[in-house]
Amino acid sequence: MADVGQEEDFEAAQKKALAVGAKKFFLEDLKREFVTQLIYPALQANCIYENVYLLGTSLARPVIARGMMSVADREGCDYVSHGCTGKGNDQVRFELAFYGLKPDIKVIAPWRIPDFYHRFAGRQALLAYAAEKKIPVQQTAAKPWSTDENLFHISYEAGILEDPDITPPTDMWKLTTAPEDAPSTPERISIEFKAGLPVKVTVPEQQKSFTDAVEVFTTLNSLARKHGIGRIDIVENRFIGVKSRGCYESPAATILRVAHVDLEGLTLDRNVRALRDQFVTIELSRILYNGHWFTPEREFVTSAIPASQRTVNGLVRLKLYKGNVVVEGRSSDEGLYDERESSMDELGGFEPTDTSGFIQIESIRIKKWAQANIRKGQAGVAPEDVYGSRV
Amino acid sequence: MADVGQEEDFEAAQKKALAVGAKKFFLEDLKREFVTQLIYPALQANCIYENVYLLGTSLARPVIARGMMSVADREGCDYVSHGCTGKGNDQVRFELAFYGLKPDIKVIAPWRIPDFYHRFAGRQALLAYAAEKKIPVQQTAAKPWSTDENLFHISYEAGILEDPDITPPTDMWKLTTAPEDAPSTPERISIEFKAGLPVKVTVPEQQKSFTDAVEVFTTLNSLARKHGIGRIDIVENRFIGVKSRGCYESPAATILRVAHVDLEGLTLDRNVRALRDQFVTIELSRILYNGHWFTPEREFVTSAIPASQRTVNGLVRLKLYKGNVVVEGRSSDEGLYDERESSMDELGGFEPTDTSGFIQIESIRIKKWAQANIRKGQAGVAPEDVYGSRV
Amino acid sequence: MADVGQEEDFEAAQKKALAVGAKKFFLEDLKREFVTQLIYPALQANCIYENVYLLGTSLARPVIARGMMSVADREGCDYVSHGCTGKGNDQVRFELAFYGLKPDIKVIAPWRIPDFYHRFAGRQALLAYAAEKKIPVQQTAAKPWSTDENLFHISYEAGILEDPDITPPTDMWKLTTAPEDAPSTPERISIEFKAGLPVKVTVPEQQKSFTDAVEVFTTLNSLARKHGIGRIDIVENRFIGVKSRGCYESPAATILRVAHVDLEGLTLDRNVRALRDQFVTIELSRILYNGHWFTPEREFVTSAIPASQRTVNGLVRLKLYKGNVVVEGRSSDEGLYDERESSMDELGGFEPTDTSGFIQIESIRIKKWAQANIRKGQAGVAPEDVYGSRV
Amino acid sequence: MADVGQEEDFEAAQKKALAVGAKKFFLEDLKREFVTQLIYPALQANCIYENVYLLGTSLARPVIARGMMSVADREGCDYVSHGCTGKGNDQVRFELAFYGLKPDIKVIAPWRIPDFYHRFAGRQALLAYAAEKKIPVQQTAAKPWSTDENLFHISYEAGILEDPDITPPTDMWKLTTAPEDAPSTPERISIEFKAGLPVKVTVPEQQKSFTDAVEVFTTLNSLARKHGIGRIDIVENRFIGVKSRGCYESPAATILRVAHVDLEGLTLDRNVRALRDQFVTIELSRILYNGHWFTPEREFVTSAIPASQRTVNGLVRLKLYKGNVVVEGRSSDEGLYDERESSMDELGGFEPTDTSGFIQIESIRIKKWAQANIRKGQAGVAPEDVYGSRV
Repeated sequence: MADVGQEEDFEAAQKKALAVGAKKFFLEDLKREFVTQLIYPALQANCIYENVYLLGTSLARPVIARGMMSVADREGCDYVSHGCTGKGNDQVRFELAFYGLKPDIKVIAPWRIPDFYHRFAGRQALLAYAAEKKIPVQQTAAKPWSTDENLFHISYEAGILEDPDITPPTDMWKLTTAPEDAPSTPERISIEFKAGLPVKVTVPEQQKSFTDAVEVFTTLNSLARKHGIGRIDIVENRFIGVKSRGCYESPAATILRVAHVDLEGLTLDRNVRALRDQFVTIELSRILYNGHWFTPEREFVTSAIPASQRTVNGLVRLKLYKGNVVVEGRSSDEGLYDERESSMDELGGFEPTDTSGFIQIESIRIKKWAQANIRKGQAGVAPEDVYGSRV
Repeated sequence: MADVGQEEDFEAAQKKALAVGAKKFFLEDLKREFVTQLIYPALQANCIYENVYLLGTSLARPVIARGMMSVADREGCDYVSHGCTGKGNDQVRFELAFYGLKPDIKVIAPWRIPDFYHRFAGRQALLAYAAEKKIPVQQTAAKPWSTDENLFHISYEAGILEDPDITPPTDMWKLTTAPEDAPSTPERISIEFKAGLPVKVTVPEQQKSFTDAVEVFTTLNSLARKHGIGRIDIVENRFIGVKSRGCYESPAATILRVAHVDLEGLTLDRNVRALRDQFVTIELSRILYNGHWFTPEREFVTSAIPASQRTVNGLVRLKLYKGNVVVEGRSSDEGLYDERESSMDELGGFEPTDTSGFIQIESIRIKKWAQANIRKGQAGVAPEDVYGSRV
Repeated sequence: MADVGQEEDFEAAQKKALAVGAKKFFLEDLKREFVTQLIYPALQANCIYENVYLLGTSLARPVIARGMMSVADREGCDYVSHGCTGKGNDQVRFELAFYGLKPDIKVIAPWRIPDFYHRFAGRQALLAYAAEKKIPVQQTAAKPWSTDENLFHISYEAGILEDPDITPPTDMWKLTTAPEDAPSTPERISIEFKAGLPVKVTVPEQQKSFTDAVEVFTTLNSLARKHGIGRIDIVENRFIGVKSRGCYESPAATILRVAHVDLEGLTLDRNVRALRDQFVTIELSRILYNGHWFTPEREFVTSAIPASQRTVNGLVRLKLYKGNVVVEGRSSDEGLYDERESSMDELGGFEPTDTSGFIQIESIRIKKWAQANIRKGQAGVAPEDVYGSRV
Repeated sequence: MADVGQEEDFEAAQKKALAVGAKKFFLEDLKREFVTQLIYPALQANCIYENVYLLGTSLARPVIARGMMSVADREGCDYVSHGCTGKGNDQVRFELAFYGLKPDIKVIAPWRIPDFYHRFAGRQALLAYAAEKKIPVQQTAAKPWSTDENLFHISYEAGILEDPDITPPTDMWKLTTAPEDAPSTPERISIEFKAGLPVKVTVPEQQKSFTDAVEVFTTLNSLARKHGIGRIDIVENRFIGVKSRGCYESPAATILRVAHVDLEGLTLDRNVRALRDQFVTIELSRILYNGHWFTPEREFVTSAIPASQRTVNGLVRLKLYKGNVVVEGRSSDEGLYDERESSMDELGGFEPTDTSGFIQIESIRIKKWAQANIRKGQAGVAPEDVYGSRV
């Protein structure tokens, strides 16, 4: 069993495991590994899937799979098993991670064994079986959905959520207060980054600062929980090509993403940022979502992160209020922002005639194209002439 | 003068223009052109610059430039002029747009003429001059920043905002209520899209629906204003390579983007979405920001939008509350989402053994890579072995 | 049976089909459809897989699949079958194309039915069976490889070619003369393009011109054959993740690609070209290779082609000589190239001081970065200081 | 003066420099730095501009600029100067490189000083002046073009080449024999790569091997020269947006690129290769062409190269013949290619039924899309129905 920060009764889990027939039970504390090896690069790269999803489940899978393969190695296992369904992403994420670490491991996936899945048509059938056999399970008829939780997030899917037009019941959300119920007074905090990583969170209300990697997360989680930050509800595209509805709470992650993106505005070169956004952010997000962490392409993509984060050093001041994370200011010693140079109130060493030259050069090929359009009679200045594609 | 939806006293502007020496004054209502020719494709393509900025100023420039060139054509002008500074984006956006439409036009840009800019070192110097000459201007010592406003947004920059660590004063924001002052009761609305465009906004509280393109915008603007939606505060990278701090309010645009992105989850094919995000969204955003609207690359990029939006049809239900835009449900007749197929509770025509094959095939090259790592002694299952790049 | 331009005895094929038990035999001439619907967009987009392979087999599959589904529709078939092996690309290409056209079709793929593939371990086993049963087959012990041929190319794989270090025997190549045996006198031709498509090939030696789409191909094929043009020998990555060695001859296609790429230099805007190369060329090549032609992403990607080819009009003069396709000159009326403007011998309306401004503006962020490096002591001008990544 | 491998009389150059007024003359041997710091990463990344140009001039500029800044540092120079014209790429490449290394350096560029360029309208005017003043120059009326040469290539532009339809005269080409005049007997060589770099060239005809980085280049240059390999003639897009015609000979580079690309087929993971091609190859090529070597984005992009080349180890066997570089075989110990697995003649541990599952999963979203098309009446199997974009 992997402790990746979920709120769970590990002792009860152990008891249950041994009661249903496990020979041995292993609990591995993978929280720090989870934060520093998976969450950190994803944060540095601003990973996000389909514009919205912060990849909380995807991020935990490689760490859990690594822990499993480590135990399998130690215990000399030839086979491992998992309870993922045959339609989801997690089966792929676990198994590809297993194979990337230990290519000769064999996997038993009951939900993909015909004898099993013809006996149990889905989660409801299995819940009925568990009830009959008195095996305690968290998902109940009262909470008709399944969840996955860790230090970074919780997910909700299946059950009543399968109708994408049904609003999730208010009592579904577990990790955050509803914005409506959050304090009506904003709270200010600040986060310091070094090389794109959060090295210090300062919480004036608590008169405290936090610097430990795991503590930074738990602190921000509790602040976000209090202020109703980090809920999303989406329809996403699974790796196997099925659309699926998921609800997620990513409390700390939502705050950290806002702060990190903001600080990059102040400290990251424009062209590095643009290239990183288009390639690393998008590709690493896809790699994570599809469970391709232990692959050569992941090694390739993450190898570019350090050079993109060298200058991402500074402090971001934030206001937390009823679901909102508002940047109120940011500062850095990097010196890529130059107040005098960008000022509209002084020349600041800038020679405006240079921009005339810049614009003239930039316009060379545009004028050529416009002249050709005119020559061919394909141009005018009426709206209908200029907004189409001339094909 | 272009009416692109800004709150402005056009009569006063005309008087002022004629008073300071203009021979003629033209006012063009470009609101509909602005919405349908610029905002619409940007919305369909989910355009956003550097993860945060919705491009409100950039979007209006091509329409204003088109209007100017139309008047220049009609009036037989050889020269046009503008008041953009020599350090900003707008000079580039205007002039490249001019040249893309009328490559032989000449531009007079006083802020880039040494005689002028040595006489007036910046906006403050010019404000002083205006005061002295009794020319009425909106920017004052009391509101020490400059703004640009249209139907889509307002921007604030310069003045005290040039220190990126100074929180904007609460009375700066013009288009939206502060979330703290917004109603404590959420409001529900729904937006219907056809081919990725908002064709109907329904506001139950008003017992009304709006279908006209401009009205959809003004309605959503007033709803967002009421609920404190659409403020951002960033440091961005200007086209000329200078970092700059800007604050923006994009009320309707913020709501529409959330709704459109959400509906694409339900109705857009995964691979089209991924390609569109990586290429069209990013490239069109850059094109817009850099003022490259009237260029062959813009024609090229926008020509791909219709094929990406054919299936983006449906309804999104939203909750507006104190700065938050929360999707509460979405529906569509497109049929790409299949509740039975994605269900965790039934097979739904799905054969889970297929996924076993899928995973085996997906793992082929990963296993080969893992076996090579092992053969070279470059692999293990300890954390330190697996998370680096093996180079 | 599909006639996609392969050199084949269709009558013998029909006889064989009926002799081995086919109830009916259909021969469809798909050559024109192949050229105009598949080859043309691939040529316009400069499609190429992994830098080398011109996709000849991939291009024919959608056309053949469309022809099959058309017959299946007409004849009311519920099932279709194909003889592709279970390890290759073509099974995927055919079946995904079937499903994209007729999603309810059922496919029988003997090479993936255990009873079949345990009876026949591979092509050699099947050749033995065919010999025993006196079924005539083209592949023989003397020519121990398999081929796929059409108007665009021929492929060779399997058999002795499976060792990637074995040089293909000289008598394997079928469509082209060896460069060593080609004429020792070069031959000149010219190709005229409209909207990126070859509309006229002029062959002075034959005192003839060719304008018909299919004839353009057959003419260029015979010229390339004569001059030893279009052979490649590569190791490529199949869609299923297995590496595989293939040899290909693409005679006409090789000439056309050289000419089309060259003409784009003269007639295509720089930024359109760059975006097209990075997105359309690469994505459409991958789509083709992986058999994703009848998909929404293919419709999306090809929808951008016309806007990229509007200006690709002109004439390219070529020299063909012993495997070489040499561009000797090109011309166009598009007017994007301006001899005076690019001239090093006159100003040509160009103001060199503009470039000073351009360079100054371009250097703004670079200087800022260099100053920061110096401030941090991370810079110098010794080689070892400047070529690394400073991380 | 920088020795980057050009064939030049450095003593004569020194004499000339001192004769026309230089106070001091410095000659720096930068050949090894050129090969190992610039050419190597470009080769590893398969850099190429606009599909054709191997970037020979671009590659030398950063090395020369670094050498100049090193001398400027040593000698305490505040100013440097160069003779690049105001319309070309090299002025940008040199100056941006200067600023990236020494942001406070001042540049004197006579061709952009009005007094100078109004006195001398272009290269012809300056040649006349040189003749009058008896200053010896290489470019003459007999060879009316300008050249740039180094270890990697030579370029020809301007003069009669400015008409893109004029075939370059046969006596222009300097570094290679015409294919027509090359030996009629092919020559075989082999190149061994480690981490994507050529570590050994074996030339059986000479019974010799070469392992030194510079010697590898000079050896391949002389082989390519002999066999007529590496000429191109193109119209390209300069950074300033002007189209320009250039002819280039890149002898060794052409051979090395063919060999490197080929070996990657055998030894590089498919997904790494695809990502590298789309991002690193294209972006680094653009960075090089535009003179952005000493920038943060270059550091970012090159930081990803090592992880892409870790497995590119092996031997490529080549045939050189009259302009052709033909791969005759390749081998490697990396083990990513598995002859049994890819074989069409045996199962090789492969379970073909897995592919059935793979295809079924791959078809899920395609079938959904096809069903939706059918439901909307937007689909059929006639050619005209299926090849368009349905918009």
